Amino acid sequence: MPRVKVFVTLKPSLLDAQGRVIQSALASLGHTDVKDVRVGKIIEMEIGDSVGNVADEARRMCDRLLANPVIEDYRIEVGA
Amino acid sequence: MPRVKVFVTLKPSLLDAQGRVIQSALASLGHTDVKDVRVGKIIEMEIGDSVGNVADEARRMCDRLLANPVIEDYRIEVGA
Repeated sequence: MPRVKVFVTLKPSLLDAQGRVIQSALASLGHTDVKDVRVGKIIEMEIGDSVGNVADEARRMCDRLLANPVIEDYRIEVGA
Repeated sequence: MPRVKVFVTLKPSLLDAQGRVIQSALASLGHTDVKDVRVGKIIEMEIGDSVGNVADEARRMCDRLLANPVIEDYRIEVGA
């Protein structure tokens, strides 16, 4: 069964509020040299062998459910 | 400035409730051949050149804030 990883990140032009919060929390812990923190999601899954083109199937899942194409980009990595 | 990616995932022995929900949502959309969905976080950031060992610095950040070592694993990738 091929293992698929989907990386979903906010589009670079959008403000990442969660990233900002993490950045200021890191700064308050003394990690003041950290810039431009951005947060994304990884979704890992196994897709059955019966599916022909695994990357295409993953792309359909992203467009329909896993990512919001208006504000997010995604990248698909098909493993062994 | 080195760009660092931190991948935080739930330990494999723990039930991933969010992954289960995604799996059943995918199944209800017709993607029934998807198994073992697991969800994690990516935290991307830039660490200033003044920091000596970037990977060590990122590891400290993970242990103190970015990950919960009791239930999560993390992996650090230092880019250019």
